[in-house]
Amino acid sequence: MKVFIIGVGLIGGSFALDLKSVIKQVEVYGIDDNEEHLQKALDLGLIDHKAVFEDLAKADLVYLAIPVDASLEVLPRILDLVNDNCVVTDAGSTKEHLCEKVSDHPKRRNYLSGHPISGTEFSGPTAAIHGLFKNKTNIICEVEKTAFKLQERALEVFQAIGMKIRYMDPKSHDRHIAYVSHLSHISSFMLGKTVLEKEKNERDIFDLAGSGFASTVRLAKSSPAMWTPIFNLNKKNVMETLDEYISNLKHFRKLMEEDNFEEVFREMERTNHIREVLNGINQNEEIKIIENGK
Amino acid sequence: MKVFIIGVGLIGGSFALDLKSVIKQVEVYGIDDNEEHLQKALDLGLIDHKAVFEDLAKADLVYLAIPVDASLEVLPRILDLVNDNCVVTDAGSTKEHLCEKVSDHPKRRNYLSGHPISGTEFSGPTAAIHGLFKNKTNIICEVEKTAFKLQERALEVFQAIGMKIRYMDPKSHDRHIAYVSHLSHISSFMLGKTVLEKEKNERDIFDLAGSGFASTVRLAKSSPAMWTPIFNLNKKNVMETLDEYISNLKHFRKLMEEDNFEEVFREMERTNHIREVLNGINQNEEIKIIENGK
Repeated sequence: MKVFIIGVGLIGGSFALDLKSVIKQVEVYGIDDNEEHLQKALDLGLIDHKAVFEDLAKADLVYLAIPVDASLEVLPRILDLVNDNCVVTDAGSTKEHLCEKVSDHPKRRNYLSGHPISGTEFSGPTAAIHGLFKNKTNIICEVEKTAFKLQERALEVFQAIGMKIRYMDPKSHDRHIAYVSHLSHISSFMLGKTVLEKEKNERDIFDLAGSGFASTVRLAKSSPAMWTPIFNLNKKNVMETLDEYISNLKHFRKLMEEDNFEEVFREMERTNHIREVLNGINQNEEIKIIENGK
Repeated sequence: MKVFIIGVGLIGGSFALDLKSVIKQVEVYGIDDNEEHLQKALDLGLIDHKAVFEDLAKADLVYLAIPVDASLEVLPRILDLVNDNCVVTDAGSTKEHLCEKVSDHPKRRNYLSGHPISGTEFSGPTAAIHGLFKNKTNIICEVEKTAFKLQERALEVFQAIGMKIRYMDPKSHDRHIAYVSHLSHISSFMLGKTVLEKEKNERDIFDLAGSGFASTVRLAKSSPAMWTPIFNLNKKNVMETLDEYISNLKHFRKLMEEDNFEEVFREMERTNHIREVLNGINQNEEIKIIENGK
């Protein structure tokens, strides 16, 4: 199987690594605007060959893992170039615009729209790691628009690298993911900003910050090049989540101002329920591991 | 050495565990309002004996690890009861009110005001773990007000369990810690609340949430009984950090509304600098480990 990775960064590179470890006779080609990244991906053994768009005609599977605004331009071009028996899938964090963009493309049935809920705060080919997708969810949108045998090929690959699959329409995906992913990034970035602004003397942060701070601010290390287009393309949903978040923070502040600490207590107590939700995520991962016999 | 732990929860219990593993001939007594917790601490071997306040006369070191509002009432009572050669220290997350409260106490020199930057989102004696304080900072306030030989005894114990020491005045402590700890907790609680409110159908959170969400919302699992009095006693500073955080979030929202994504990019890029701050924390821990020859 000839696999083309477009964008050999954290996601594309990790996908290549896993493919090579679980699928026999896979040949991985890399395409990237950034020649330095491409060479690095070759040196690290993430890809077997450097390639260009014109080589896409021989692809069996194309994995598109570049910022979402670039994907909007590149996806139609890829579909123009691939053969009828190639499946093109992607890792974009927003799905509505991308699905719209190719809705009338003559090769729409060659595209399977995906979003793996996996990643780290790092980026580039050197950030690629084995097992990034293991027990993670891949959200597939508009599965019915993809040719059946091509769905099957892509899903076999996703399952082989340990992903579980969930199906969703693009609008619902973008709305839900704004809450559980995009908002977390803004809350983390702005928390980092607030503390950095205040603590001009970094020595103080350095000495007083514990693991709690590190945990809440971890996502503020993320790549602006990746996240700016996500916020842009999912603007409406993200602004809605921000409004609700700001409103909840203001309410908390108001309770404090009024010395209503009984209600401050209850606010936190009600939110403690998040424990079970997070335990659910962990348990699910454990179940998955048991299923895999490990 | 006879050590009394007042409040045999996560912090008190972990302190007892570490003491018993690094100091020879230590005898640990536990005092707790919650009889069930006290029995559990005994069953788990965190403490050697259950005790009551009247036993404090024989203590060499008292570790006070209860919610900060309760500490305000209990600390003067402890000082009344201990002998002249006993050092009393604590783990409270706010220091100004506590230091004020005992400033005129006849046994002020028996008290060493501390705040270990360590903990997890869990609570109670079953949450106690070995090594919780290793390579963590213990902030000591008003060290000059403690008798020299009692400072020395407490600091030897802190160093024996792997803590590094920083000195700070109580006002600065409360102001700085509002930024790097208290605000993180509110941002996390309100993020959890926002998502829980929206996603009535938990199946969606469960499937779409990844490690990024889990990381930012982890602190929302924390104990309201511990955090309500912290926010209350550090109200002024916490409200100030909240105002700045809300203002930064509103600014980010405004940039999005105006489609000024170039500035959205720069906001995130500037905050990426948090990487070096967090790396600094990690590096420091590594240096500490090397110093300890491990």
